[in-house]
Amino acid sequence: MMSLADSQTRERHAAALCCILGDKAVLIEDASKAPYEHGARYDAGSAAIVLRPVDSHETSLALAYCVAHGLCVVLQSGNTGLVSASTPDGAGTQVVLSLERITEPFVLDEENRSVRVGSGMRLSELNRRLAPYGLFFPIDLSADPCIGGMLATNTGGARFLKYGDVRRNVLGLTTVLADEAGTILQLGRGLRKDNTGPDWRQLFIGSSGSFGAITECWLNVERMPRQAETVILVPATSQAVAGLLLRFEAELGGYLTAFEGMSRNAMAAAFGHTPHLRNPFAHGTVPEYAILAEFTRCWEPKEDEASLRNLVENTLVRMWDDGSDLLADALFGSGDDLWALRHALSEGVQKSGKLFAFDLSFPRGQVARFRDCIAEACSTSYPEVTICDFGHVGDGGVHLNMVVPRDHPELQRHSYERELRDWVVEIAVSLFKGSFSAEHGVGRTNQRYYDAYTPEQLKRLAGGFRAATSPNGLGAVRFD
Amino acid sequence: MMSLADSQTRERHAAALCCILGDKAVLIEDASKAPYEHGARYDAGSAAIVLRPVDSHETSLALAYCVAHGLCVVLQSGNTGLVSASTPDGAGTQVVLSLERITEPFVLDEENRSVRVGSGMRLSELNRRLAPYGLFFPIDLSADPCIGGMLATNTGGARFLKYGDVRRNVLGLTTVLADEAGTILQLGRGLRKDNTGPDWRQLFIGSSGSFGAITECWLNVERMPRQAETVILVPATSQAVAGLLLRFEAELGGYLTAFEGMSRNAMAAAFGHTPHLRNPFAHGTVPEYAILAEFTRCWEPKEDEASLRNLVENTLVRMWDDGSDLLADALFGSGDDLWALRHALSEGVQKSGKLFAFDLSFPRGQVARFRDCIAEACSTSYPEVTICDFGHVGDGGVHLNMVVPRDHPELQRHSYERELRDWVVEIAVSLFKGSFSAEHGVGRTNQRYYDAYTPEQLKRLAGGFRAATSPNGLGAVRFD
Repeated sequence: MMSLADSQTRERHAAALCCILGDKAVLIEDASKAPYEHGARYDAGSAAIVLRPVDSHETSLALAYCVAHGLCVVLQSGNTGLVSASTPDGAGTQVVLSLERITEPFVLDEENRSVRVGSGMRLSELNRRLAPYGLFFPIDLSADPCIGGMLATNTGGARFLKYGDVRRNVLGLTTVLADEAGTILQLGRGLRKDNTGPDWRQLFIGSSGSFGAITECWLNVERMPRQAETVILVPATSQAVAGLLLRFEAELGGYLTAFEGMSRNAMAAAFGHTPHLRNPFAHGTVPEYAILAEFTRCWEPKEDEASLRNLVENTLVRMWDDGSDLLADALFGSGDDLWALRHALSEGVQKSGKLFAFDLSFPRGQVARFRDCIAEACSTSYPEVTICDFGHVGDGGVHLNMVVPRDHPELQRHSYERELRDWVVEIAVSLFKGSFSAEHGVGRTNQRYYDAYTPEQLKRLAGGFRAATSPNGLGAVRFD
Repeated sequence: MMSLADSQTRERHAAALCCILGDKAVLIEDASKAPYEHGARYDAGSAAIVLRPVDSHETSLALAYCVAHGLCVVLQSGNTGLVSASTPDGAGTQVVLSLERITEPFVLDEENRSVRVGSGMRLSELNRRLAPYGLFFPIDLSADPCIGGMLATNTGGARFLKYGDVRRNVLGLTTVLADEAGTILQLGRGLRKDNTGPDWRQLFIGSSGSFGAITECWLNVERMPRQAETVILVPATSQAVAGLLLRFEAELGGYLTAFEGMSRNAMAAAFGHTPHLRNPFAHGTVPEYAILAEFTRCWEPKEDEASLRNLVENTLVRMWDDGSDLLADALFGSGDDLWALRHALSEGVQKSGKLFAFDLSFPRGQVARFRDCIAEACSTSYPEVTICDFGHVGDGGVHLNMVVPRDHPELQRHSYERELRDWVVEIAVSLFKGSFSAEHGVGRTNQRYYDAYTPEQLKRLAGGFRAATSPNGLGAVRFD
């Protein structure tokens, strides 16, 4: 078999695929392929061919063709991921199968509070279509991914605390296997309770597109918040964060929707690199650590109900009065302003220097201990690093960002990044029993840590499941 | 190899297992085995030997021995299931491995709101231990199962609407495979976000103990409700039920904890067979259909907040005033009294005649249509049947109970039960796209329907996964 690196072979396959799928579904020119070869933030590769089927049937034909001809396929959805799970490597011999044209159907079942959608629908488009019904898909992200990729990644996000991850909100999916027949599996179809055998869809959720291409999804949708109150909490000490979380869960748990930690360095980076970003703190100071807490209700304000503002204020007053010593300060502000700060952190940090980003999680009570430990260890072992962390601390999540001045000589050292990454992950996983990928998935970026920290028995299970689903492999990751 | 039907062989194996596990872990006398041979409500079989390990290590030794000697093992936890998934068949050649002595550890992580428990811990005992911390495991059942069995079944229950099923609340588990080594797999350990590969624990949850014995669990726990209001709603028509549900979700969604449907026949059976059960309806009448709706908050009542009673009352008033025509009546009562009615339904129905029970689910909007359809079809095809349904209609669940007078001649007909069951399941699954087992799992009872309605491809996946985990089979169900 000729390699796809050979242009004649490539053209022959492209011509055959055009016959099967139509011209619009097959891209081979460099310019048209380019958007599919680069990740949203990191990473660039080269695709031999890009395929863009419009439904499960075409996906099946495309995958069956690729399997029959031994072509290596990487699945791509919205291409907003951060771990190189959906882009081709640099060899120029991989086929990218993009799901972005699978934007149909959109079938809303209002009584069931569920929707059936094509996996290529963007999150923003889904929410735009749901809005007239007062509904939304409750996974809140800064990016605008397609739904299929959200399932493949098992995305979390900022409102996980209330609504959970994607897994919790999937009521069914259709997946196409990379086997000889391009088998289409329908796994669930919108029921909320269904225990009629092993729940296979769970293995396709969060598998980075390794076992099959998700082409349709049945999703739980939620009622849109009709009231919201956002407050910035300044904890008295780093160790007080978990206590504050428990206190708000105890007093206002049903309303608590987000509990986001922001370090001083991350906030300073946001203020320094985002024009017009308002600083809510007095006199332009920035505290050591702050928490954005959001409280929402999904119903219209009622005359007979205390406002969320009053409820939060009264909780804060009780906290001051009973001397719990958890809180140094609290600031109310417009939700838009405060979330603008939260959303500016990521870009601000990126602009501050050479960034090494980690997506970690811990048992919730360990977050502060890990932060203190890594800061101290870093000051000794990697003094050139500035830690600019933030994250979903309400779920134990820490987006640990390490920033090094771009002109620092250590950056010239070939093995520097790998050493730094290995050092952080080892502390997080082995010492603090944490996760090296809380919500971003595996991808090529984390393949090394999957290989290092996954028991052999689980790799064997993955090999068996791959052999039973997509035997020649699929996607950018290898779990066996 | 001699069969376990042979008493000498049985005694030889029992003696060897006593050496490995100790005398207390091995039961062979008829009287001591008896409690492990009968289901809670249905079904009786015969066990050759009952094994009762105390931890994962002993479970591993026990399973490795059974695999080495070709002994067929059925796992048993609290033995409260309703589908014959945890009891031996009638041959007397199966080994029952009971998890009930695995009651350790109990490790609470308050800051993470999670607990690590042995799978033999009873739900009531878990909640008794959590109560001093204001926490509980939010799966609400009439039965008192052990935690391991709840995972194997993926139990739902009456508060699913707010807290989800067991799957949503599992943060990790330990499982022991029935392979030569008695392999112990640790899958997750309490993190709320962890996307570092395929989530294998999901296949052990809801698999009726077919792939491995769950010996330890990491569970999410929730804050106990501190306020509750319970109301009986009488819908204007059967079709109004879904509209009522949507209305309460829109107006008071964050507080809605249960939305339970009760048919007139089921309520009449409860009143007829439960001494001292209070009838909340005026003049002792019973409406065609009623809904028990429960609203809770997890915090102490606050002076500045309207009471739940007021909020529910005001919603009801608005519903009357705006002429939505959904509601015929609404009755407040003590939560204990109203739940006593709900919990008396099952036993009342059982005492009313020969019972054929189904645990079905549908998209929520289909529940009323299914109920109407099956009632009409039944009156023609099975006029001897009285339908006494109730169920978790807020999640689309229907416990469809068909009662036939015990002296009815049709009951003498050998094939009657099978015909009736096949007829109901075919209507539910094929016509209404429903589930033949919403929350009870598969078990021997539903094996027939698993076989009939599961695509061959999924059976092959199950066969592959069984071969990779417990190759000689495990449990009472066969998924391939």
